[in-house]
Amino acid sequence: MSGRLYIALLHHPVLDRHRRVITSAVTNADIHDIARSAKTYGVRRSYIVTPIAEQADLVNAIIGHWTRGAGGTLNPARREAMEAVEVAGALEDAVAAIAANESGPVRTVATGARLEGPCISHGRLRELLEAGDSAYVLLFGTGWGLAGELIERSDYRLQPLAGRGPYNHLSVRSAVAVTLDRLAGLKR
Amino acid sequence: MSGRLYIALLHHPVLDRHRRVITSAVTNADIHDIARSAKTYGVRRSYIVTPIAEQADLVNAIIGHWTRGAGGTLNPARREAMEAVEVAGALEDAVAAIAANESGPVRTVATGARLEGPCISHGRLRELLEAGDSAYVLLFGTGWGLAGELIERSDYRLQPLAGRGPYNHLSVRSAVAVTLDRLAGLKR
Repeated sequence: MSGRLYIALLHHPVLDRHRRVITSAVTNADIHDIARSAKTYGVRRSYIVTPIAEQADLVNAIIGHWTRGAGGTLNPARREAMEAVEVAGALEDAVAAIAANESGPVRTVATGARLEGPCISHGRLRELLEAGDSAYVLLFGTGWGLAGELIERSDYRLQPLAGRGPYNHLSVRSAVAVTLDRLAGLKR
Repeated sequence: MSGRLYIALLHHPVLDRHRRVITSAVTNADIHDIARSAKTYGVRRSYIVTPIAEQADLVNAIIGHWTRGAGGTLNPARREAMEAVEVAGALEDAVAAIAANESGPVRTVATGARLEGPCISHGRLRELLEAGDSAYVLLFGTGWGLAGELIERSDYRLQPLAGRGPYNHLSVRSAVAVTLDRLAGLKR
């Protein structure tokens, strides 16, 4: 990946099936898959965002198992991926941590299968990344997607992924992988 | 997706970390994520391939929960995706089931992060799909990937996915999603 790209996986504020704002539970496969995709495509760091202390402890225990514990010894490739993952209590904390390590502004980019309004294409975001003036954080929502308030205050909205028909229900793990592949823009 | 495309997720013969041929265990998240990606991108059917009867029973119980049971009532989108998933005892059984529903030949396409030898690009496979002369089955390996014997007797090898660096450890769930997105070849 050219450019300075980060990921935030949000468990709050996100929607449930009735479009109510909730805090979702952390999923082990999300952490692993996002860590692996991020490392493969050159994302700088990924933040697992949850405001619940017990959930943050759980994520830290998982990361610790694969970075300092038995998992990392058994599977060095997984350790390498997990070393670039950490927990944040809120998106603002993740953005502050990124800003502390980067020069220039940090721009947030909301993603979602049902985003409306002005969206930027993957090609355009790739150009912005290559221009290098800002660091960018892709925001992915668990549950039924990011809450409206969070979309409203993000700097950009990324054009939704879509197949050829009306069905569009990728897992967040799959959406992360496809988004990074599109942003990498390699020859196909 | 233009064309007649199928997926087979293989749990045997696949490799373990020491490159030994094993039978891997079924993973719940694989079934769900592949079902959702397949439905989103217009894959006709997906086959979860395992020679172990108890594992086949488990997969059938999961599929049943989401197609005929409480899961499908709660989440109709998941039901729709799961209705296009079934179990097969061996790749040959899956290919025979596909052949019974399709005219013309059924071509197998091996995938993997470390495939060597002559590979076809995603763009070329997209052209073959659009030409419509054959049905195609993408073969994905769990564990550390497809066993050599299976790669040897497949009709094609698909160019490995890769990011920009040497690290290339996507989950099979992520690899399925990215592969289908590349084959769909939609405007980015």
